[in-house]
Order: sequence, then C-alpha cells, then structure tokens
Amino acid sequence: MPVELNETHDPLLTSWVAGANEAGTDFPIQNLPYGVFARAGKPRVGVAIGDSILDVAEAAQAGSFTGMAEVSAKACQSGQLNALMELGPDYWAALRLGLSRLLRQGGATKAAESCLVDRKCAQMRLPASISNFTDFYTSIHHATNAGRMMRPDAPLLPNFKHMPIAYHGRASSVAVSGTSVRRPKGQSRAKNASLPSYGPTQRMDFELEVGFYVGPGNAIGETVALADAPGHIFGLSLVNDWSARDIQSWEYQPLGPFLAKSFLTSVSPWIVTLEALAPFRVAAADRGRDAPDLLAHLDDAQDRTHGGIHLQLEVFLQTPKMRGAGISPERISGSNFDGQYWTIFQMLAHHTSNGCNLLAGDLVASGTVSGSGLSEAGCLLEMTLGGTRPLALPNGETRSFLEDGDEILFRGFCERTGAARIGFGECAGRIEG
Amino acid sequence: MPVELNETHDPLLTSWVAGANEAGTDFPIQNLPYGVFARAGKPRVGVAIGDSILDVAEAAQAGSFTGMAEVSAKACQSGQLNALMELGPDYWAALRLGLSRLLRQGGATKAAESCLVDRKCAQMRLPASISNFTDFYTSIHHATNAGRMMRPDAPLLPNFKHMPIAYHGRASSVAVSGTSVRRPKGQSRAKNASLPSYGPTQRMDFELEVGFYVGPGNAIGETVALADAPGHIFGLSLVNDWSARDIQSWEYQPLGPFLAKSFLTSVSPWIVTLEALAPFRVAAADRGRDAPDLLAHLDDAQDRTHGGIHLQLEVFLQTPKMRGAGISPERISGSNFDGQYWTIFQMLAHHTSNGCNLLAGDLVASGTVSGSGLSEAGCLLEMTLGGTRPLALPNGETRSFLEDGDEILFRGFCERTGAARIGFGECAGRIEG
Repeated sequence: MPVELNETHDPLLTSWVAGANEAGTDFPIQNLPYGVFARAGKPRVGVAIGDSILDVAEAAQAGSFTGMAEVSAKACQSGQLNALMELGPDYWAALRLGLSRLLRQGGATKAAESCLVDRKCAQMRLPASISNFTDFYTSIHHATNAGRMMRPDAPLLPNFKHMPIAYHGRASSVAVSGTSVRRPKGQSRAKNASLPSYGPTQRMDFELEVGFYVGPGNAIGETVALADAPGHIFGLSLVNDWSARDIQSWEYQPLGPFLAKSFLTSVSPWIVTLEALAPFRVAAADRGRDAPDLLAHLDDAQDRTHGGIHLQLEVFLQTPKMRGAGISPERISGSNFDGQYWTIFQMLAHHTSNGCNLLAGDLVASGTVSGSGLSEAGCLLEMTLGGTRPLALPNGETRSFLEDGDEILFRGFCERTGAARIGFGECAGRIEG
Repeated sequence: MPVELNETHDPLLTSWVAGANEAGTDFPIQNLPYGVFARAGKPRVGVAIGDSILDVAEAAQAGSFTGMAEVSAKACQSGQLNALMELGPDYWAALRLGLSRLLRQGGATKAAESCLVDRKCAQMRLPASISNFTDFYTSIHHATNAGRMMRPDAPLLPNFKHMPIAYHGRASSVAVSGTSVRRPKGQSRAKNASLPSYGPTQRMDFELEVGFYVGPGNAIGETVALADAPGHIFGLSLVNDWSARDIQSWEYQPLGPFLAKSFLTSVSPWIVTLEALAPFRVAAADRGRDAPDLLAHLDDAQDRTHGGIHLQLEVFLQTPKMRGAGISPERISGSNFDGQYWTIFQMLAHHTSNGCNLLAGDLVASGTVSGSGLSEAGCLLEMTLGGTRPLALPNGETRSFLEDGDEILFRGFCERTGAARIGFGECAGRIEG
C-alpha cells in the first residue's frame, strides 16, 4: 500500500487567499477539502481554503483548469460531488494539483479571485447524494466497553477479531452539521419495569465516528480486493451517529439498531480527500499478540505500513448554562483514529466481499472511535459507565446523557512534524426538546 | 380505518384489452398495477392489463386523461414512479378511475390502443428509485421458528409483541425479478469449527416477503399517526430477501444481518395499489389472548376491521434437473399475508415514531411470511428445520438449501367471493454459482 507525496503536500506552500496561512487553520493549501454550499439558493461544489470557499464549477467556467483537472471540475457543475467521486483517483489528483497551483502564492489569477465566497457566511449542505449509509464497529475499545455492560464475562463477541462487523444505517436521515437534533420519542423498557413505555428518550447520546465517502463503486456480484480499496475511497469526514440508548437496548435484539439511530446522523460538511491525508498515513494499529490470522480478503499482513490514519479527534460539549454564561464548549473526550482495530480499506473490502454493490457517494462510517481510557471514550454510554458515573463539568453541572439545549461539537485534525497541519472543520448539533 | 369500494372494483367490469378477462389472469381491469418497463431503451411507467402494458405517459400525451388524472399520468413522464407516489391518494384514485374508464369495455379509444405494448416481451425494471429499504420481522411464526433454533427455551424475544421489529436493509442491491442471483461468498464458521472460513455460502435460502412502497413521506422529526398511515402507502409487491444463513449466523451479533442479505433482494415488477386491494382488506390477525395492550402509537384496538390484507402467497422451486426433464416448478410452500402479527400500517407508524423521515419510493418489507405449519414456512431454514430435514421433491431430489441452477418463484393473488381475482405477477430468481 504505497503512499506517494507530491508537490501539493509540500509544507512550505502558502496561498494568496486570506486566512489560509494562519497557524492552526483547518484549511491551508495542503488540505483542499470538498463540500457543497448554497449560492443564490442553488447547491455549488466548493473547496475550502482559508477564510474562503472556491466555487469549483465557476472556476472551471473561468478557464482555471485544463485536461483531466478541467473534466473533474466540470463534473462539479451538478452541485453534488457524486459525479466527481465517480471519476476516480487520477482525475481527483489532477484537480487537486490544478487547485493547488491556482490557489498557491504566485498562482493568483483575477478570474479565481472572483470565484471565492466568504466561508463564514456560507450555508453548507450535504456534500453528496448519499444512497446508502453503512456503519461499522471497528474500535475494539468501544466494542469491549459497550459489550461489558451487557455481557460482563464475555464483552467481545467471537467474530470481532475475524472481520469488521457492520450494519446498514438509515440514509434519509443523514444531515449536515448544524442541523438541529430533535430529541426522538420511542419505545423503551425502563430498568425493572415489566412493560415498555413510549416517550422522549431519556438516554440521548452521541457517537464520535469517522466516515468515508465511496468513489467509484463496484458492480453487483463483484468484489473489491483489499489492495484495490484505496482507489474506491474519495475522502473522509466526521460523523455523529446520535443514539437513543434506551430505545436501542429494547429494540436491538435480534436485528440490530433501528429507531435508536434513524432519527438523525450528522456529518461534517467538508470531505478531506484521501490524497490530502497521505502525509498522515501510518501503520495499521497493532492488533495484539492474540490476534487470529486473517482470511485472505482481509489479510493485510504483507503491508500494514499505511493502513492507519493519524487523525486526532475531539469532542466538545456546551450546555445552555455554559452558553448563557459565555463559557466556551468544554473538551470532554479525545482519541485518535489510528488506533482502530480495522482499517477503512478492510471495511471496504469486507463490505464488497459478498458482491454487494457500492455506489459513488455512499457513506461508510467507522463506528464509535474510542481509545482505551475513559477520557478517550467516543460516547457518553462509555464515558459515564452507562450513566452510572455522570460527567462533571467545570461549572458544576453534571451529565449522564444529553439534555435539551446541549450542543456537541466534534473536531478533527492531522498534524506531525514535517507536514502542514490540516483539519476537518466541525461536526455540530444541538439537542432540541 | 374505513375502506371504500368504488366503480373501479366492480367485479362485473371487463376490458377491451386481450387477456384481461380470462379466468385466472393476474391483471384484470380491477387490478391496474404499476411498473416500469424499457421501451426503446428508455424507462417508461406502465400499467399491466391482460396481455399488455399501457404506457401511461404516452396515454396522457394522447389526451386520455383530464384533471387530477392527467396531472398524475404526467408525473409518470420521468420513467419512474416516485413522482406519482409523492402525489398521494386523491391523485392516485383519480388516475385509477381514468385508467379504468379508458380500458374498460366500451371505453376503447384508438389513441389508447396505440399506447399498448406486449407484456410478454417487455423488459421490466425496478419500479422506483428506492432510496431506503427497511425490512421488518412481523410474522410470529417465523420469529418463533427461527428463534427456536437459536434459543430453544425462549424462541420469541420479549420485545416482539410490543412493537414490530425491523432493521435497515441495503437499498443498492434491490433488483427486479429475473435478475440472476450470484451465490455470494462470505465469512462463516462451520459447526464445530474453531475458526471461520471464506467461500461460497453453503446455506443459500430465500425469504418470502411482501413489501410496500411509501407514497408521500414525512419531514424529519415528524411522526405519522397510525390512522394516517394508509395515505402514505402507495402499493404492495412481492419481495425475496435472499439470505446466506451461514454468513448470517456468524455475523449477526450484535448489529444484525449485513452481508448475509446485501448481495441481492428481488422484487416483483408490479406494484398492486392499496386501492386495488380494498376488496381484500380484512381484520388484522388475532394476536391471541396473551397479547399485551399496545402503546398508543401502535394501538389499533379501536378499529381492527381492515388492518389485514387477504393475500395468498406461494413459493415454487424448479431445479436444473426438473427444468431439463420439462417438469414445472413445484409448489413447496404457501401462506397468507392476513396472518401477520403486525399490520403494514403499524409498520409505517412505528418506523416514523422516532421522527425518521420516509421518502416516496422507499421500500418497506414485512420480513418472512410464514404460517404456523411447516408447509406454510416462508424460507428453507424453517421448512427444513435448519437444514436437518431436507425437502423431498417429487422427482426424488432433495434440498436442504438452494443449489446452483435452482430457481425460486413467488406468486401472490387475492380472491374472494364477490370480488374480481387480482394477482401480483411473479418474483423470480435463479441461483448462479
């Protein structure tokens, strides 16, 4: 799994666009993530750069690109990223190179300047038409912590180390960051109650996840080999798989989560491409000495050097009281995506191992990303030990689960010596009663 | 839940179209189901009538309809049924009345005649763009029989009688009847084996199901009350939820079925509208004396008179040897949809009870429809007691699970005294190695 760096990754590159060279920006010229924003009421494909968004199709119209880059930019005219996603890595690389040269210091053209809009004022939309949403379960810490609450003696099920477990999520209720989160009603059975009741969930939770968008898909009946998986992955985003734990524990046997999740799933608006992440590809996480040999379609023993992505994740909470008192969102958790037991490439290979057809724009998420300690847990269920040990906030408030008005923000960024820091922006949602 | 009959249901109506008045036809003038067929390589919305299909948009073009019927027919111009589905029951009723008057004896117009194509030669396609596929689990016999194999002491889980259990299926791999079924490969762990292996499924099964297509959807965060559910259901089809049992039993804990199902799901090409089914609406199945009271959003105690649909279902199997010897497909099972523990209306109300947004064209299936006896089982897993008691075929062959070349056909029809018999056509698929 060789990963090549090119001139677009050069940490010394700077941009002529305001804000792009500031320390700590999520969107330097080495990032160039894609999203969809509203302009005059219409969806437009944009690339985040500093404080701005470049309208890609408009830049193409203005003659900013040639060759494969031009073809790629024109695929953005529909106002959704699906057509670009379908083109594949060679086209993506050509457009990235074209964008980098256009936006870097010295590459300024008057034409490109007029294609920039103010990022702060832009209204972001879902980046793609998501036909299918699949959610995996690839953190061994999450699986162990959540499993321990239900099966103290055998928290981890026997299949976990043999293949990445997943289920189909609900595609219609995937919404862009900022969409308000209506507290769902549902059926649940309270502890010690003999009968269920119906009402607003009492155990509202978030799940910190990373998702990838599928690039070119595969025909039904065809599989994608592990070595070919990178060519089918367009880029990554942050995902909040909001969960109603009381509904979930009552409904999930025997067919898995359903209404506990399908009321809303939030995604961050920017898709950081796999190419932008190249400097942060690291060895796949060590699976431990007791890890079984993997079956051929999942076996990465030959080359584990770039299976992981060093991506730092953070969760912030702001309660209504904090907001009222002007207190910033509090960081309540953090973990790194490089610790996942299964890689995104194994997820994709497994997903297609039965011939299931993936489509460009499908969203595939990692499941809750948790580290080994409680301070690295990716959901309140783990963090508060099932609600038994409430989280203490600096202003004296406590939380077992989320209350109305609470806002959850995810942030993600990649940094290491010798590379420019790049960020994912935010995935945010506020609970409404 | 009042159900009104109108002139389109009159059993004495006949049609001027060839084949529509023959005894036993699935498509008399009282049916008028919708589908999508290919004409000159383009998808067209059609209505099955006798041996023909009426091209609906072309008939509209020819001036066959007026008012709301015309609006509805013109919604079919896109070549998919989604736009018609979105219009709702008043529009559907207007178009049905227009179609009935156009196609009934005496209503012939030369214009309509030229809009007919030969049904036998037509290549059918998926009737709608299916954004989301949900599969329920509403047969108490199936749940009990399947559950007994895993939990002999407590086959039925405690939640079953309190709400209809469901999971998200895979939308991309829903295909129209006739699509060949590639035997999926997958990971499974053989009985008594300590390690899993990867290869073609050894336990290939079908699942006899009935699905409905959603009409007008609901906004995210909004619920649909049980009494309003009928207005959100466009019509019904047969569904074969092909299942790889060995893959399923190894992967399904804790998140439910995934690759065991996502390789293919077949649907019959014709959607029989809820209005066409009006003469066959019967009381919802008796839930038995030990049934718990239902929570408000599912409670149909006030009016159970038309919750069920009297729809006879049949499963036929033809092996390659039978085909070679000219032996017709053998009927191996049959059951009636009126015995389901949960109604389609409860399914829809439950699905939206957390605010999950349904979209026009979403497919929602019943789960395996099984009666109480083995001869009424809706899948081989039940019929052969998990493969331990193979099915004996008249030509001496046996089947525990499906072999390459086997073809499974579902048929469905409604009949009762005083109403014209209507049918669903066929849902067929042949296993390919």
